[in-house]
Amino acid sequence: MYLTQGLHRALRHTPERPATIFGDRIRSVAEHADRVARLAGGLHTLGVSDGERVAILSLNSDRYCELLLAVPWADGVLNPVNVRWSPAEIVYSLVDSDTSLLVVDDTFAPLVPELREGHPGLRTVIHAGDGDAPDELVAYEELATGPAAVPDARRGGDAAAGVFYTGGTTGFPKGVVLTHANLLTSALGSQATCPWVVPGGRGLLAAPLFHAAGLAPWLVQSVVGGTHVLLPAFDPVAVMRAIAAHRVTSTVLVPTMLQRVVDHPDLGRHDLTSLRILLYAGSAIGEALLLRAIEALPATDFVQAYGMTELGPIATMLTAEDHRRGDRLRSAGRAAVHAEVRVVDEVGNEAPRGTVGEVAVRGGHVMAGYWAKPKETAAAVRGDWMHTGDAGYMDDAGYVFIVDRLKDMIVSGGENVYSVEVENALSRHPAVAACAVIGVPDLDWGERVHAVVVLEPGARATLDDLRAHVTAAIAGYKAPRSVEFVDELPVSGAGKVQKAQLRARPSRAFATAGHGGRR
Amino acid sequence: MYLTQGLHRALRHTPERPATIFGDRIRSVAEHADRVARLAGGLHTLGVSDGERVAILSLNSDRYCELLLAVPWADGVLNPVNVRWSPAEIVYSLVDSDTSLLVVDDTFAPLVPELREGHPGLRTVIHAGDGDAPDELVAYEELATGPAAVPDARRGGDAAAGVFYTGGTTGFPKGVVLTHANLLTSALGSQATCPWVVPGGRGLLAAPLFHAAGLAPWLVQSVVGGTHVLLPAFDPVAVMRAIAAHRVTSTVLVPTMLQRVVDHPDLGRHDLTSLRILLYAGSAIGEALLLRAIEALPATDFVQAYGMTELGPIATMLTAEDHRRGDRLRSAGRAAVHAEVRVVDEVGNEAPRGTVGEVAVRGGHVMAGYWAKPKETAAAVRGDWMHTGDAGYMDDAGYVFIVDRLKDMIVSGGENVYSVEVENALSRHPAVAACAVIGVPDLDWGERVHAVVVLEPGARATLDDLRAHVTAAIAGYKAPRSVEFVDELPVSGAGKVQKAQLRARPSRAFATAGHGGRR
Repeated sequence: MYLTQGLHRALRHTPERPATIFGDRIRSVAEHADRVARLAGGLHTLGVSDGERVAILSLNSDRYCELLLAVPWADGVLNPVNVRWSPAEIVYSLVDSDTSLLVVDDTFAPLVPELREGHPGLRTVIHAGDGDAPDELVAYEELATGPAAVPDARRGGDAAAGVFYTGGTTGFPKGVVLTHANLLTSALGSQATCPWVVPGGRGLLAAPLFHAAGLAPWLVQSVVGGTHVLLPAFDPVAVMRAIAAHRVTSTVLVPTMLQRVVDHPDLGRHDLTSLRILLYAGSAIGEALLLRAIEALPATDFVQAYGMTELGPIATMLTAEDHRRGDRLRSAGRAAVHAEVRVVDEVGNEAPRGTVGEVAVRGGHVMAGYWAKPKETAAAVRGDWMHTGDAGYMDDAGYVFIVDRLKDMIVSGGENVYSVEVENALSRHPAVAACAVIGVPDLDWGERVHAVVVLEPGARATLDDLRAHVTAAIAGYKAPRSVEFVDELPVSGAGKVQKAQLRARPSRAFATAGHGGRR
Repeated sequence: MYLTQGLHRALRHTPERPATIFGDRIRSVAEHADRVARLAGGLHTLGVSDGERVAILSLNSDRYCELLLAVPWADGVLNPVNVRWSPAEIVYSLVDSDTSLLVVDDTFAPLVPELREGHPGLRTVIHAGDGDAPDELVAYEELATGPAAVPDARRGGDAAAGVFYTGGTTGFPKGVVLTHANLLTSALGSQATCPWVVPGGRGLLAAPLFHAAGLAPWLVQSVVGGTHVLLPAFDPVAVMRAIAAHRVTSTVLVPTMLQRVVDHPDLGRHDLTSLRILLYAGSAIGEALLLRAIEALPATDFVQAYGMTELGPIATMLTAEDHRRGDRLRSAGRAAVHAEVRVVDEVGNEAPRGTVGEVAVRGGHVMAGYWAKPKETAAAVRGDWMHTGDAGYMDDAGYVFIVDRLKDMIVSGGENVYSVEVENALSRHPAVAACAVIGVPDLDWGERVHAVVVLEPGARATLDDLRAHVTAAIAGYKAPRSVEFVDELPVSGAGKVQKAQLRARPSRAFATAGHGGRR
């Protein structure tokens, strides 16, 4: 199969039906297909062919949906860029993936000069915005309407569909290469396990399309047919309004988004009864929040998915029936039909049920590998098993419970934050002698990025100093929201900081502001 | 993916749940898996490895389900034999596919000497019956309990899963080679298009497992998890009893089976309310029968699938929602999400909507080819498109309407006559119990429309009666010019009328007039 297959099917079955709804702009399947085929022609004239990467740095929009199809239609490979990234991170990913063509919307057009400076190989930038294209940028609307439509390259199967950068555990992002088969195995397998998108329905894309929480529901709705309702970015009121206005049938939210909808004072003022399915994913959910959500949306089936970009992305599902039974709401669910899931010990043997180990997953949805990183690929995918880096256990009925992240990854506001990356930035501050970054429970963010810092002798620093320093290097959401100054870090015999000890300290949860000094 | 994947998943999730129910014999998933793994060990000792074919000649049973998994577990290839075949046809398929290992149940054990005589290469015969194994036959129960369990070969992906012989249009059967990916693409794609098997539910296998109408629901239930309820062969009362006794959630029936259930006088005496989904497939259905069935089973969703063995088998589906809408009940539905479906003219160009042509299908579910028949494969699969041999048209919304088998289409006096249309008209005559319409060579007309009719008990009718009746409904040139009255029509194991047999009968060309009566 191939990513554009659903568009061909929709064109045969429902050419007049809306394909995308973005604000007041509604495009039919026929229009959508025409624009995609012309855009692909335009990409050809810009030199795209045979697996060339096309980066997209944009908030959600109908144009984003067009690009997700036009790039493979033109035989290209998608490179959706994390919109929370700093210019330095974006440049890194563009250089790493040898991407010379970038699409930006109005929000990100101002970054282009900095990106060009950092990546002189950036040959072409397309402006997918609403106003006139700035100088030296190619106008998207001309590409989507001007060129002759070209035939679909039908890029599919084991060919790469995209390079999806994730914040790497080494401190540098890694490009996850997913094939068309990877993405479609997860899409069909998850939908066959527990329907989470309504065929012919209207899916609300409130999570960003660069992220699996946006891309996966886009793909399933494309495959089974229906309409994409798009929000440029998450906002609880916009979500409720869109559901009510467009009779949305399903959506995907990360837990922090769900919390902001469910706890919003206006919740009762919107008619959300059209919402048949709500899938949540992306980080652990508090059981209290989940129960509140189930109560607040009595007409809606809840489904949880667990996985990661490297798994295309879905590995396990807590089905609607599991939620109705309600006895395992803290679980991430059981293996979807396309996935083999195990909990393994350090040497790769299956751990006894109930014993914590690393969650490992095998199947046709496991990534082809990390872009140009054979060592990291070999470390993650061993004997066909993707080692998720997540610590968890499996109960007697095969339900997986995630208890921690082996690699100290922090999930804050639905975004993955890798502590090593933050530590790298933090340690470059002149006052910092040593540091460790951990996640601590936080009511607003799920987890809060928390720094434990040893200062240089005689040096002084405040939380604000450190945040300013970190934010200059990496995205703001990765900067510590609290800090604690200590005399030394607990280290193991091999010299590794013992983060488990830091997490276990009673003192960790304070000091959201303040300053420290060491004499 | 691979055929045994669902068993591994079930073993992790629900080892205590019944895997198979066959009469009074209930085996749990754990028992089922243990027997499969031992059987695979037994097959190894009998020399099965690396794609060797294992034929199964048996009515439906729990053992049949075990074999469907044990053969790939042992790295073998399935060769399920049509139980309606003559010994000569069976011998042909065993020789053609170079199959040296055969499993028979009690029903077919008496055929073994004749099969051995016809196929001296038949090295081993396993007796999967209930009594003692006859001389020179290997006892199945010893294989399923004696040998040590072996690890699953995890045969899957593009490796052959089975050779499925179909009564060939050329008069000789052809072995359709389906890979694991072929079968699983159809299974996941059809279930994602419109759920037709209940995850964790109980599927009744009343259609024979050698046939797609039995194999496909077996596979989907295996993949999504649940219990197989097996009948040795179709019987309307047994179907109703099994649904009521085991709270069956879904089943697949061919139209003739459905008719015998729906029109059974005891229908109202069985509680069939557990049946959430009934999929029918295998041949065209009369709209009157369908409406009767929908009315008789108000708690049940109806789904139609159209396809063929060569398509793994599903290409299009008339969904439950389509049935509820009810405006296209004569359609075979629309392309499933995994299939690309077109109607093409003689040179392979897409026919305009509404124009009859040949139905052609493309996708990951199209067979690898006919076993050792490259010419026939090249004739059927052209440019990746499987040419089904079915004449049909597509309407503006993509719904496919099958009008006839191309080979059953009659060209009489330069006009195309679709036998199905004539049969529909003829079958509404009160004296007609069953009928088949074929073309026979005719000096004046090229082909002449010829009817083979089974009369209702005690009824009488003449050619003129029948012609008058048909001509009242459809064009005069479509009315039969000759008729032949018989006691019964030859039908296949799947309940399809065998028109090739009718055409081959020496008696066919007479009776251009006259009348028949049945006592």
